[in-house]
Amino acid sequence: MKYSTIAIGDELLIGQVTDTNSGWIARHLTPLGWEPATVQVVADDAGEIERAIDRAFADTDVVLMTGGLGPTKDDITKGTLCRYFGGELVHNADVERNVEQVMAKRGLTVNEYTRTQAMVPSTCRVIQNEVGTAPIMWFERDGKVLISMPGVPHETRTMLERGVIPLLLERYHSGEDIEFRTLVVIGIIESDLAMRLDEFERALPKGIHLAYLPEPGLVRLRLTGISTDRETLNADMERLVEQLHELLGTASAGDGDLSVAEIVGNRLRDRKLTLATAESCTGGNIAHLITSVAGSSDYFMGSVVSYANEVKMNVLGVNGSDIEAVGAVSEPVVRQMAAGVCRLMGTDCGIATSGIAGPGGGTDEKPVGTVWMAACCGDRIVATVKHLPGDRARVIDRASTEAMLLLLSIL
Amino acid sequence: MKYSTIAIGDELLIGQVTDTNSGWIARHLTPLGWEPATVQVVADDAGEIERAIDRAFADTDVVLMTGGLGPTKDDITKGTLCRYFGGELVHNADVERNVEQVMAKRGLTVNEYTRTQAMVPSTCRVIQNEVGTAPIMWFERDGKVLISMPGVPHETRTMLERGVIPLLLERYHSGEDIEFRTLVVIGIIESDLAMRLDEFERALPKGIHLAYLPEPGLVRLRLTGISTDRETLNADMERLVEQLHELLGTASAGDGDLSVAEIVGNRLRDRKLTLATAESCTGGNIAHLITSVAGSSDYFMGSVVSYANEVKMNVLGVNGSDIEAVGAVSEPVVRQMAAGVCRLMGTDCGIATSGIAGPGGGTDEKPVGTVWMAACCGDRIVATVKHLPGDRARVIDRASTEAMLLLLSIL
Repeated sequence: MKYSTIAIGDELLIGQVTDTNSGWIARHLTPLGWEPATVQVVADDAGEIERAIDRAFADTDVVLMTGGLGPTKDDITKGTLCRYFGGELVHNADVERNVEQVMAKRGLTVNEYTRTQAMVPSTCRVIQNEVGTAPIMWFERDGKVLISMPGVPHETRTMLERGVIPLLLERYHSGEDIEFRTLVVIGIIESDLAMRLDEFERALPKGIHLAYLPEPGLVRLRLTGISTDRETLNADMERLVEQLHELLGTASAGDGDLSVAEIVGNRLRDRKLTLATAESCTGGNIAHLITSVAGSSDYFMGSVVSYANEVKMNVLGVNGSDIEAVGAVSEPVVRQMAAGVCRLMGTDCGIATSGIAGPGGGTDEKPVGTVWMAACCGDRIVATVKHLPGDRARVIDRASTEAMLLLLSIL
Repeated sequence: MKYSTIAIGDELLIGQVTDTNSGWIARHLTPLGWEPATVQVVADDAGEIERAIDRAFADTDVVLMTGGLGPTKDDITKGTLCRYFGGELVHNADVERNVEQVMAKRGLTVNEYTRTQAMVPSTCRVIQNEVGTAPIMWFERDGKVLISMPGVPHETRTMLERGVIPLLLERYHSGEDIEFRTLVVIGIIESDLAMRLDEFERALPKGIHLAYLPEPGLVRLRLTGISTDRETLNADMERLVEQLHELLGTASAGDGDLSVAEIVGNRLRDRKLTLATAESCTGGNIAHLITSVAGSSDYFMGSVVSYANEVKMNVLGVNGSDIEAVGAVSEPVVRQMAAGVCRLMGTDCGIATSGIAGPGGGTDEKPVGTVWMAACCGDRIVATVKHLPGDRARVIDRASTEAMLLLLSIL
């Protein structure tokens, strides 16, 4: 099944905001066997919106549209959809009640602007927006379906899962069952992995596909299965996941669409271990990634960002003579940083980084992108150096991931 | 002048990677008076690419295309463009030399794949890619121009500025001069700002426009001027910026497209002050934002991420009885955290946060989104509480910005 996406908003076109909704939709529909044909980003303009719909329907029978529904803009999109599909704007009491409830939760009263959200095209089926005031609208004509969702990412994401996907499944997959499983694989590069899984892939039953989704430092494997025989599909998927675990051994770092920070968190929680980080070149980014995971306070105690050498010495207890002798970007320094932060915060595990993120500060011996990192757990401590490509942001990002992977290698 | 953007790549369509190039292009072309008509994201597929070009040319005379030029994919895009514009793939010695130089800088030798980059359509003008192996290609036919750029963001960005924009100016703006100025305004919300600048806006000379670009906690004002009379334009722009500074007083936080972390950094550097952060709910994100700025080691000493209360007490010296009496998310605790990290790291200034980022941990009295923050500079210390909307990521993000703005209010 193919579909198209249209993201509406002047702010998207001029680059003030990035459209992340289309990607979110794709990541949730691809595993269901849905294939994105095109994404269009268009202005808050009736003519542009109509042309975009025409083009999308020329490609596919299903169009998911996001944005253009804010109270100051809804006349354009709602009015345009109303004209496009026929009908007129009518007052919807359920939507009005929903708007009042959502606003009350935010401690706000409904004003004139937000009240207009209750006017919806008579030709659409309304899906109540549980987390915002703009209703989701489902239009259908001559076998073509268009679903209009709000553009605020957390509203799009919540209502895609709670409201839109269930209706899509009901409408397009009656009688079919879709299952998917994701495995995270660490420490094997994609080409080696493909060789190792060559036979496995050839032997996949009809209707089941394997996809490789490589990221820096890891590969996600996604199995998607579609079948009208739910029981066989279920048994096949279970058997295949078991086979993958056997083939991959310790390289398989867990099921699911986990981030590296989530994998680290799960391992720590399982083993009842605590973590602290000591960061120089990553500047707090590892702590930020770890604490971006809800519930991380179970295992994460804290971090010392030791940007200045004085902080490395005075707070983390790094030997000043080592810094003088071999520099702050060195193996002895990251080892002492990791051990030092564990001692300071009383944790079982530690991660440390020290490197040159650039653009300045590089030398012939230690060019920009040189990052020393250490990880320790109990008495065990390991250190390694990486030479990472890209600009400052990429070096910080990659170094953060690599340092977490280093810890995983000893957990 | 209108233009369209096409981003090519299966990885963009399926949401594995987000297209940030189109936004980057828009942010750089809008100030030059160029208006984006549509963005299309399409698959690595010849038919899809051709249809996207047809559609883009139906809208606009200029199309900027990114992606689809990796050595494993270039057959599709280059071959497609070659067919579309006529001509054949020919060997280009300059491109081959450039590929060799770029690979040598990376310490790599040219393999068979990368060598194919030197084959380019005979109908295009080549712009050498200074930071990658895929050449930029400029096609022109019947007054229509298509520019194909690589998709790797840092290559797109670098070569847009160095190679593509200069040629666009030469081709489309001969005789015209374009100037722009950006001001960052802090502490005035957009609607108040619009009222205060009402008269200023009405009196703007012909050809000069003012745009409001609001972000959480600040508004960017962008003046764009286009004229054939370079001298008058220059004088007008200077005069208008001065007028804006007069009208805005201390609310104007500096010229340029600066991030909040950059504004903080510039103020600190100007005043020869140093900074440390003590972060609980922001989990190191403020340190990460501050250190994402190149050269931040001039003023940033480090951070203590005190996720656990023990770290607040033992490392930052927060009074345990205060935590017991009023909780870690409270005014006395953030005040002591800010003062504590300044003492620990010997800095002039400090920022501290403690809050409930969610989804768990909220209470009736302190719901999710409640964040206490403090900032100090010398003897002066201020604290405030914010109730921030959204999910965990948004709360962390907003709290980080608000805490930096709090420091700015006393710098």
